[in-house]
Amino acid sequence: MRDWHRAAALRARAAGFDVVYVYAAHTYLLSQFLDPALNPRGDDYGGSFANRARLVRELLEDTRAAVGDRMAVALRIEVIGEDGAGQEERAEFLHQIAPLVDVFDVTIPDYGTEMGPSRFVKEAALEGHIAHVRAATARPVVSVGRFTSPETMLGQLKRGVLDFIGAARPSIADPFLPAKIRDGRMDDIRECIGCNICYAHDGLGAPIRCTQNPTMGEEWRQGWHPEHVPAITGRSDPVLVVGGGPSGLEAALTLGRRGVQVVLAEAGEPGGRVTREARLPGLAEWARVRDWRLHQIGKLPNVTLYPGSRMTAGDVRETAIRHVLVATGSLWRADGRGRSLPGGAASFSDHRTLTPDQVLEGTRPALGPVVIFDDEGYHIAAGLADLLASEGREVTYVTPAGTVAEWASYTVEQSRLQARLIERGVTILAGQTVTALYPGTARLACAYTGRETDIPCAGFIPVTSREPQDALWLALKDVAKDRGLTSLHRIGDARAPGLIAHAVHDGHAAARAHLSPPTDIRRERVILPKARR
Amino acid sequence: MRDWHRAAALRARAAGFDVVYVYAAHTYLLSQFLDPALNPRGDDYGGSFANRARLVRELLEDTRAAVGDRMAVALRIEVIGEDGAGQEERAEFLHQIAPLVDVFDVTIPDYGTEMGPSRFVKEAALEGHIAHVRAATARPVVSVGRFTSPETMLGQLKRGVLDFIGAARPSIADPFLPAKIRDGRMDDIRECIGCNICYAHDGLGAPIRCTQNPTMGEEWRQGWHPEHVPAITGRSDPVLVVGGGPSGLEAALTLGRRGVQVVLAEAGEPGGRVTREARLPGLAEWARVRDWRLHQIGKLPNVTLYPGSRMTAGDVRETAIRHVLVATGSLWRADGRGRSLPGGAASFSDHRTLTPDQVLEGTRPALGPVVIFDDEGYHIAAGLADLLASEGREVTYVTPAGTVAEWASYTVEQSRLQARLIERGVTILAGQTVTALYPGTARLACAYTGRETDIPCAGFIPVTSREPQDALWLALKDVAKDRGLTSLHRIGDARAPGLIAHAVHDGHAAARAHLSPPTDIRRERVILPKARR
Repeated sequence: MRDWHRAAALRARAAGFDVVYVYAAHTYLLSQFLDPALNPRGDDYGGSFANRARLVRELLEDTRAAVGDRMAVALRIEVIGEDGAGQEERAEFLHQIAPLVDVFDVTIPDYGTEMGPSRFVKEAALEGHIAHVRAATARPVVSVGRFTSPETMLGQLKRGVLDFIGAARPSIADPFLPAKIRDGRMDDIRECIGCNICYAHDGLGAPIRCTQNPTMGEEWRQGWHPEHVPAITGRSDPVLVVGGGPSGLEAALTLGRRGVQVVLAEAGEPGGRVTREARLPGLAEWARVRDWRLHQIGKLPNVTLYPGSRMTAGDVRETAIRHVLVATGSLWRADGRGRSLPGGAASFSDHRTLTPDQVLEGTRPALGPVVIFDDEGYHIAAGLADLLASEGREVTYVTPAGTVAEWASYTVEQSRLQARLIERGVTILAGQTVTALYPGTARLACAYTGRETDIPCAGFIPVTSREPQDALWLALKDVAKDRGLTSLHRIGDARAPGLIAHAVHDGHAAARAHLSPPTDIRRERVILPKARR
Repeated sequence: MRDWHRAAALRARAAGFDVVYVYAAHTYLLSQFLDPALNPRGDDYGGSFANRARLVRELLEDTRAAVGDRMAVALRIEVIGEDGAGQEERAEFLHQIAPLVDVFDVTIPDYGTEMGPSRFVKEAALEGHIAHVRAATARPVVSVGRFTSPETMLGQLKRGVLDFIGAARPSIADPFLPAKIRDGRMDDIRECIGCNICYAHDGLGAPIRCTQNPTMGEEWRQGWHPEHVPAITGRSDPVLVVGGGPSGLEAALTLGRRGVQVVLAEAGEPGGRVTREARLPGLAEWARVRDWRLHQIGKLPNVTLYPGSRMTAGDVRETAIRHVLVATGSLWRADGRGRSLPGGAASFSDHRTLTPDQVLEGTRPALGPVVIFDDEGYHIAAGLADLLASEGREVTYVTPAGTVAEWASYTVEQSRLQARLIERGVTILAGQTVTALYPGTARLACAYTGRETDIPCAGFIPVTSREPQDALWLALKDVAKDRGLTSLHRIGDARAPGLIAHAVHDGHAAARAHLSPPTDIRRERVILPKARR
């Protein structure tokens, strides 16, 4: 093990890296040695803290000896809160080990806080746990903590908590974050919303996506630069973007940056689903998807936003604009269609039924017990249960899954969402599907056996699937040839309901594709080496 | 869509394929057109069955026109049982479409039966649903149905149910299945046990593994042939394999095939964990892992099995054999150590506590309510709950997961296991951890809030993690240098508890590595093409 680590450090040096880590956190090997509950050894590497820390010390010494002063040697280590068991010996260890360490990268054992979503964890959440390390070690300290705003980052440095700011997710949302701080362009920073969609794709083994930064993961594959988009040169006709949700805002902004005249027509106020979803408990930061784009669009004289402008096919014709992007979004279905009920349920057409959109626009179910049917599994149904329970409503959350907001396990929100609902007194009925409404009741069927039960129901919110609001696109498509539209595309949820990240990506892609030749997507080529035998 | 399909068929023809499919099953696109619940179209492709089937017909016609008589055109289609809605129009459709089809590949909508595990689905389970197709179409018919035995396959042909046998999993377990039938080597067929570990790896996005066939997925990567293993030429010393579970049996068999003298010492009867686990309801076929290897070993004069031969380090010394493989397996821990309780729980040391191994060896908890704590999530805890409930015991199944046997969703067993426990009257407490035993009760903690409750407990079975039984290996390791062992290795669960497939693979790998130079593992090389710009 020590030989391997030494060899890896030397390879990193040969490759030109500046820092090499000894990594003793996150239940990886070294933190298993440190933890008495996980280290049963009876030899020199188990028992006392000095013994359990021996391998960490040896690797630090080995690494220093291997790389000399050509590289900095960093130690990533978890500190334990002041009331945690073992806090004193950890502090003593930090003091003793400091001479071997150039920089301490400090974190805490609770990964749900370190990787916390904005729904539950606010900026600088680690500060109370780690603030003592800098004085205790007299060494530079770096840490993460969902830092998204320059003001918070600066506060950490000014108050002597940290010497370096660790910020992975904010750098995904805006890789030019440090440059923009340096240049005083604070309002241009595309600030992370803390939705953890980046981390979800990591857990899914899927190519990364970012809700705020549609170029993330496309830099090499499609050649998309996070800050630059090719200008459209020469004369170009204006473009009408219908719908000011995440997809329409991104499309209008990106087209504007390409130099095109853009008319952005929004039926109500801009933001679309982001405005609605940001009303769920804890999600205020999600509104940055809307606000950053509105602010950037405001800097572009060639993009004009018209709120309160619902467009018909006739209205589009009257604009005389020949390029149209339809970004009219999607709405939650009221009929129950979805994974459990592909054809929906006729009895859901009932005065008790409200869609998530209606609730988020301010409508509330009639007094009495509310049944929320989560057949989708991300966060909307759980968020609505949280919201209504916080208003004092009696809520039953029904899902065919085994847990609340099952998919939100990928965004590190599942466990806390379920805890929240339990603490709010929401009745959770897992492994159940709502199949019908009857007067005063909702009928449930066991997802495993089909056994039926009835529960009281004065209000009903099915969260099953969404319907693209593509009537305008369909109307324009039928007349496009006659009326002389040069280009017409659906984008975002109006084309295919998905994550907010998908809608932003789709709007960005459409704006890049406008009047541009199609680009091949670059792919890794896989070569099978010849047999050795 | 039709152009794409036509072009794909032509590419397949150019590549030399013999059969091209039109695939109208498994909720893929064409079966969505066919299903009135999923097809809301108002045009020529929706409404009547003829309209919903229009695209299937067009693709069959297009494909025939494209490939001519150079390839056979197959249609994969789901039939609906005689009491299912739409059965008549489907039968009429099959009759009408038959002239366009060279071979019907028939299946049923219930994927849990088509891909059914042996625990719940027996051989030829589709026959009752599909037997009418051959007469109705006067065309050759192929179908799957978890066919593992030549006898069942032959019965399908003799009785006119099928013309071709579809058998994917059995071909994974033994790629030479057809050749062995042809050659009359029925007893050499490595028969699929229906555990669905192959399919689990597909769902996990992980390289495939097979419980019966350790070479699966290693043919190219490590150059392992499913039927041939390099002979050890020249003089070679004998090898002692200690432990006749899946790993030891596979190692002894493979070493024997390499020409080595093998002594296989087993403390009791051979089979190890496979013998125990095959006693769970529905798992009798899993014993094939043991039985096939015992039968093959019986053909090798150079391998001798000694049952009832528990070995100490002194016994090993007395054999004077200098190569030792220790395959002594693992046992379930009684102390509760595992994911929820890394340090275990002292109170589990109680007369009420039985391990899964003890129960599977025939011991039963004292009369009264039995609490089974599933902190592992595959099938053992659920299977024990099923077993004890079937014997009339009052059983409570506790898990921090949201569902019964959560991991068994990858093996298509989760849903039916949970249904089984519900139907047997087992009390299922999800989202809960057993933290302590008290007189007469077990204490539970909510996995989300930590809230505690107590439930009656007269017997307790923790299913949390396993302890390698490596005492012999440790004892031999300490004396190996003094005592002159030439090689000493742990294999299978004694090295690292895992799936049965892992143990078999480990035993196979150790036997291949014996006296052989280490081989590099071949990997795909990934090349990044240069930028186009």
